[in-house]
Amino acid sequence: MCLPGTVEKVAELSRAEAVSRRSFLTAAGAAGAAGVTATLLPSAAQAHVRGKGRHRRPVDLTHTFAAGFPMYTGNEPARRTLTTIPANGFYGQEWTFGEHSCTHMDAPGHFVAGGRLTPEITLKELMLPVAVIDISKKARTDPDAQVTPDDLIAFERKHGRIPRGAAVLMDSGWAEKLPDEAAYKNADSSGTYHFPGFGIEAVEWLLDRRSPRAIGVDTLSLDPGNSTTFEVHVRWLGADHFGLENLNNLGKLRRRGATAFIGVIPWEEGSGGPCRVIAF
Amino acid sequence: MCLPGTVEKVAELSRAEAVSRRSFLTAAGAAGAAGVTATLLPSAAQAHVRGKGRHRRPVDLTHTFAAGFPMYTGNEPARRTLTTIPANGFYGQEWTFGEHSCTHMDAPGHFVAGGRLTPEITLKELMLPVAVIDISKKARTDPDAQVTPDDLIAFERKHGRIPRGAAVLMDSGWAEKLPDEAAYKNADSSGTYHFPGFGIEAVEWLLDRRSPRAIGVDTLSLDPGNSTTFEVHVRWLGADHFGLENLNNLGKLRRRGATAFIGVIPWEEGSGGPCRVIAF
Repeated sequence: MCLPGTVEKVAELSRAEAVSRRSFLTAAGAAGAAGVTATLLPSAAQAHVRGKGRHRRPVDLTHTFAAGFPMYTGNEPARRTLTTIPANGFYGQEWTFGEHSCTHMDAPGHFVAGGRLTPEITLKELMLPVAVIDISKKARTDPDAQVTPDDLIAFERKHGRIPRGAAVLMDSGWAEKLPDEAAYKNADSSGTYHFPGFGIEAVEWLLDRRSPRAIGVDTLSLDPGNSTTFEVHVRWLGADHFGLENLNNLGKLRRRGATAFIGVIPWEEGSGGPCRVIAF
Repeated sequence: MCLPGTVEKVAELSRAEAVSRRSFLTAAGAAGAAGVTATLLPSAAQAHVRGKGRHRRPVDLTHTFAAGFPMYTGNEPARRTLTTIPANGFYGQEWTFGEHSCTHMDAPGHFVAGGRLTPEITLKELMLPVAVIDISKKARTDPDAQVTPDDLIAFERKHGRIPRGAAVLMDSGWAEKLPDEAAYKNADSSGTYHFPGFGIEAVEWLLDRRSPRAIGVDTLSLDPGNSTTFEVHVRWLGADHFGLENLNNLGKLRRRGATAFIGVIPWEEGSGGPCRVIAF
């Protein structure tokens, strides 16, 4: 509910921008003190504790939905205006953004004409067992690192078979580069991005040999940043599955055994869209 | 991810409006065929089956996030533009809306200066046992019906004590008036709304005698539509709790025993905001 009548709409764009920067910089803080600690740890120490720790606590796999969160080339970042009535103690915001902002879903219809749209994703698909594929070690030395069939096989040797209907999530450690947009995108002088993603062979392996429902990444795109063909998007969404991008805190999640709730807003005719992802 | 460079942005406002209307009218369909059936049933038959039926299946308590969904007076409805590249098979939308659109959370900071904002709601608060307070019978003859302490006492006599940390949700049957905006708002000739909500005595009773974490309604406002003081908002949010508005499908939910996942997007400095609510 928003109070009518006396609303004094203050489009404080400059203030919003300042607040936005401040909030974005403290976004890790909003996700809990543990997030801040992880960010301050040197990467070797992070690697040491990946997937360990408080296994029974829920883990928020969502970034704060922040104005100015890094976007893929050609897409305008989310923005907001404030509506505030100090006299009444009433406060609210108006948002404008594309569906592929911050932590979000890519529905099949994002790339596939006639593919399912956000409200058509079933409730059964929104509560999934998780398999976390840790490629953070190779991603530290190779920003173009991909999830390969060997990574999936190595996961299964250690943690058992990828569960039926799983969300297979790539933990490349990339979320820890935020809020540094340049490091997160890692563009070369020609503008080509260099960040990890799923390789097409791994996607084919999953589709042929297992039956997962979703894949997800802690980067801007299911495909590696240097992809020009977006073949993972085309193949995965073309198989009537959805993807998750810009996931957070995967390093805090045990590699197998968690259940992810994917709280996607049922955006009308959505091509995907922002969602809250929490693992239990 | 959204494809760069070749993006041909088509702000098809007129098409978006047409699509919007169509989608909104079929929103119940998107939530499953059962929703359509419920809408077509006469209200006596609905009352007969409220809370009965397929108890073990998840129930989506969320309306499709639709352009044009009814808003409280003084607030502009959500709107969208389409971005589409038929040649590439790429599709996406851009949204603009206030945080109190469609199924959404009111965070304490919505009415309380310095109150908690959306990213500060803890994970523990987003997975709650549910108590459904059914006032649909009296709401059929009195659109100004309120949840009273007697309704809470009657619930406990039948279903046992309201669980610690519960989400206490008012099922007034009001969601079934959608997509008829006039019926949902039910304004009189002076513009005053007439739809059910929580009475302040029930809120005081809950705060004094039980320890719920959230209240929720299947109408536009926690307060009854004819409220001019918004005392339920002030009292409940002032007690550092959040509320949920425009819930859906409460008639399909068993009265006690379900667990609700409240997938609110962690909107930066949000006064609440759209969320996906699913009961298991």
